[in-house]
Amino acid sequence: MNTTHSHRPIGRGNPLVARLRRLSRSAADRESESAMLVEGIRLAEEALACRVPLDAVITSERLNRTPRGAALFALLVASQAPLWRAGDSLMDSLGDADTHQGVLLVAALPSHRLEAIIPREGAALLVVTAGVQDPGNLGALVRIAEAAGACGVASIEGADPCGPKAARASAGSIFRLPVARLTGPDAATRCLDLCRARGLALFGAAPFGGVDYRGARLPSRVGIVLGGEGHGLGEDVLRRLDGVVSIPMRSSVESLNVASAAAVILFEAARRPL
Amino acid sequence: MNTTHSHRPIGRGNPLVARLRRLSRSAADRESESAMLVEGIRLAEEALACRVPLDAVITSERLNRTPRGAALFALLVASQAPLWRAGDSLMDSLGDADTHQGVLLVAALPSHRLEAIIPREGAALLVVTAGVQDPGNLGALVRIAEAAGACGVASIEGADPCGPKAARASAGSIFRLPVARLTGPDAATRCLDLCRARGLALFGAAPFGGVDYRGARLPSRVGIVLGGEGHGLGEDVLRRLDGVVSIPMRSSVESLNVASAAAVILFEAARRPL
Repeated sequence: MNTTHSHRPIGRGNPLVARLRRLSRSAADRESESAMLVEGIRLAEEALACRVPLDAVITSERLNRTPRGAALFALLVASQAPLWRAGDSLMDSLGDADTHQGVLLVAALPSHRLEAIIPREGAALLVVTAGVQDPGNLGALVRIAEAAGACGVASIEGADPCGPKAARASAGSIFRLPVARLTGPDAATRCLDLCRARGLALFGAAPFGGVDYRGARLPSRVGIVLGGEGHGLGEDVLRRLDGVVSIPMRSSVESLNVASAAAVILFEAARRPL
Repeated sequence: MNTTHSHRPIGRGNPLVARLRRLSRSAADRESESAMLVEGIRLAEEALACRVPLDAVITSERLNRTPRGAALFALLVASQAPLWRAGDSLMDSLGDADTHQGVLLVAALPSHRLEAIIPREGAALLVVTAGVQDPGNLGALVRIAEAAGACGVASIEGADPCGPKAARASAGSIFRLPVARLTGPDAATRCLDLCRARGLALFGAAPFGGVDYRGARLPSRVGIVLGGEGHGLGEDVLRRLDGVVSIPMRSSVESLNVASAAAVILFEAARRPL
């Protein structure tokens, strides 16, 4: 292993270990410490490519076993962030993934206000998630939103888009696309009222009962609102919408996964001349 | 707990436990025993609704703690399948999910030959997965294929669509939509040659370099071929295609997740009058 002067060993008693566990488990702690975990080679590469400020870099020998990992290690050393080396068993207990890849970063938490995400004029496609519970789905939604050319995501309640699973599922989109997190009992109301004040039309997505998404004629400034996996869109959300779109299904399947449905609808929305 | 005469306790030494572990871990064992695991309340409900033959039913007390679970338990008792009750810790060790829901079934493995899946005439949309490695993605693809009105899925190499994670991600579509599993070094060749002989045009999906999927004019008998997460479509596959379609991206994102891309492309294909 390419041990440098500053590559200190880290044991279970180190206060950084307790911090890593907090950042892994608690959205509130991520918020109050303005930090998040970045786990695995790909996500760490994306964080570096996006020049996300790093508080700490923890690696194990495993990282240097592949050329890709070794290249990442060299970049991490060059980043000048405090560097720690951990044993594989500690690494396993710290990470959220089933099998660690030998790299874990403490990175600055992306922080975006909804006001700043919605452009004041011109075309705008905003993705609003209202109570999406599964972090894998939420991360996939952020990835899809970026690919479809959205200006950003407003994430109301539900999972934390900056949690370890969601960040991994975003494949790095969480570092590139502005995501505003809104929590609290009136989060949906605040969010949708602000969208409205900024001149966005608001369309919800529902498995059944909406207008066929292919004929929905979405305007050029629009927010697409996606509900949670179990209960869909709540009353307080539905009341504030201009319309609801649905994907006609060919079969008895109950509904598409929220990320699949979002992919279909957002790429349809992206057909509009932006 | 609603203990019936035939609801026998099961301990770690029971041969059924070893069988459950085999069926959880090994696609080859699922194949040779023509059986698969069904885990969790929703998937068990779907299996019952589809009248999938059951070899064994294993439940724990947890199942009866919710009305939905208790209703499922009553249906399982009525199914006449051999009924076993397990403790929660055994249940946790048997299942693949992070937290068990108190129900695990041994069900007949769906078995479909590709020849039987492709209708001999009329419109047909076949989904071909070539080396999709992630069982969650593969299951999501089966779910999307059903929702988009596909006649079935040909699953070449990669993950097993009947494994526990894939079955869960399919949300029950694995019991309704015919899926043919093809393995071995010449699986891709055999599959695509058969599709061709049956008069399907073959279009691959690739992140870049293909025709814009919106202008691809897919014919009414078509197979959409999706490659694996890492390497995409192999040379032996590409050589057999009529064309490749891509989703134009708006940003620096590397690619969509294979399930998201499939959702966008398959619902576009489903726009054709079937």
